[in-house]
Amino acid sequence: MKVGIIGLGLIGGSMAIDLRRKGFAKQVLGVEADPVNAAAAEKIGLADRMVSFEECVDEADVVVLAVPVGAAVRMLPQVLDRFAELRTVNGLDVDGQGSDRKVVIDVCSTKEQLARCVKYHPERRRYVATHPMAGTEYSGPWAAMPGLFDGHAGIICDAEESDGRAVKTVERLYETLNMRTIYMNSSNHDVHTAYVSHISHVTSFALALTVLEKEKDEKHIFDLASGGFSSTVRLAKSSPDMWTPILTQNSDNVLHVIDTYIEKMQAFRKAIADGNEDEIRELIEESNKIRRIIR
Amino acid sequence: MKVGIIGLGLIGGSMAIDLRRKGFAKQVLGVEADPVNAAAAEKIGLADRMVSFEECVDEADVVVLAVPVGAAVRMLPQVLDRFAELRTVNGLDVDGQGSDRKVVIDVCSTKEQLARCVKYHPERRRYVATHPMAGTEYSGPWAAMPGLFDGHAGIICDAEESDGRAVKTVERLYETLNMRTIYMNSSNHDVHTAYVSHISHVTSFALALTVLEKEKDEKHIFDLASGGFSSTVRLAKSSPDMWTPILTQNSDNVLHVIDTYIEKMQAFRKAIADGNEDEIRELIEESNKIRRIIR
Repeated sequence: MKVGIIGLGLIGGSMAIDLRRKGFAKQVLGVEADPVNAAAAEKIGLADRMVSFEECVDEADVVVLAVPVGAAVRMLPQVLDRFAELRTVNGLDVDGQGSDRKVVIDVCSTKEQLARCVKYHPERRRYVATHPMAGTEYSGPWAAMPGLFDGHAGIICDAEESDGRAVKTVERLYETLNMRTIYMNSSNHDVHTAYVSHISHVTSFALALTVLEKEKDEKHIFDLASGGFSSTVRLAKSSPDMWTPILTQNSDNVLHVIDTYIEKMQAFRKAIADGNEDEIRELIEESNKIRRIIR
Repeated sequence: MKVGIIGLGLIGGSMAIDLRRKGFAKQVLGVEADPVNAAAAEKIGLADRMVSFEECVDEADVVVLAVPVGAAVRMLPQVLDRFAELRTVNGLDVDGQGSDRKVVIDVCSTKEQLARCVKYHPERRRYVATHPMAGTEYSGPWAAMPGLFDGHAGIICDAEESDGRAVKTVERLYETLNMRTIYMNSSNHDVHTAYVSHISHVTSFALALTVLEKEKDEKHIFDLASGGFSSTVRLAKSSPDMWTPILTQNSDNVLHVIDTYIEKMQAFRKAIADGNEDEIRELIEESNKIRRIIR
């Protein structure tokens, strides 16, 4: 199978590595608009061939849109438009064996707006909305690595809107990456990821801003940063290109969870200001319940 | 040298392991008030002998108070009182070689209140205030491990208030643990640790409370928690016994930094509510500067 990956950053590049290494992709076609990243991707050898957007969509059996969600909202309809043209020319029979198996997936962290932008597209069923819940705080081709997805959840959204065989292909793709496949609709997806993933990025960004402002002497931060601080602030290294559109597109859900979060901070603030040790202890004990869930 | 460790939890237990392994301690005497922890410490073999508080203070050349700061404030004067008694009896000449080298250190995360509670004690100079900036979110004897302190900062506070030879002994102790020794006064210590360490615990506690409240279905948290969320919320597993007194004792500094933190969250909230992508991007780019400092 030919897999075309548009965007050879952390996610796209890591998929390229594992899909080829594990035999799912006989060939990986890469598309990378940024010239520096394209040169890096070539140097690392993430793709077998670097091609244009059009060549990628024309040749690949599975097209992976691994770009920030702002760009994905623009590109997804373009891919489906191109599928429609190909269908007119040769019935999507790309391999001369009469198969109608071209699929495009995205890998974005917000799903509702993408779902909306292709809802009535005649080729909607060739699109499978996905979100591999894996990553690091780094981005770009140099951040790509084997095994990034191992053991994490691979979400498929609105599966009923997609062609059954297309979904099967994507399930096989995520199985190859050693992911646990989970199904939900895109609206629920955006609520749950706001609660679990997006808020932790915002809290890390705010923590970094706070420490950088209060602690003007960077040497002190360096000296005093134990493993705990580093781990809590780690996500503050995340890319603005990726996170600006996520926070914008999922703003309703993110704002709800930020409000709850500020309430919890205020509860701590009050307990500490009152010197109320019982209340501080209760808040900490309640938060300790996260042990039940997180390793 | 005999090292007496009062409190064989994560910090005390890990010190016991490395101080003996690396030859600083010929013998480790352990004191553990909690019967379950005492049984565990014995089973693991953290100390050569489990002894009473009094035996420990009488016999050890270096006494390490590795208990939560609330208990340390009670016990530190007791240790120094006992030193005073020993001096009356035999001039602190514990090994019959005329040396006056008995030292007590604490390892607590807040220093000002401890400094105050022994400021005028006649044996003040036998006390060296320290804070090894290392740890994990786990506690108790089972959490102890070799190498916990490797490469981290070991802070000595108010060194000028301590006997010069006592400080030298403690410097050698932290060198043995492979720590970088840093000097500051206890008031500055409490400001800087509030900014860098204490706030990240509060943000993790608040994050855990938020997610547990918003996401009632724990299965979703488990399914959707990527490495990013786990790392950000990790400190929320920290012990209330340790953190309640830290937040109480360092309340002024912690409240200042919580206020700045809430301002930063409000700035994010406003930018997201306004759909102001430029502002969101600027906030994220500013927070990315933490990359310069944190690995």
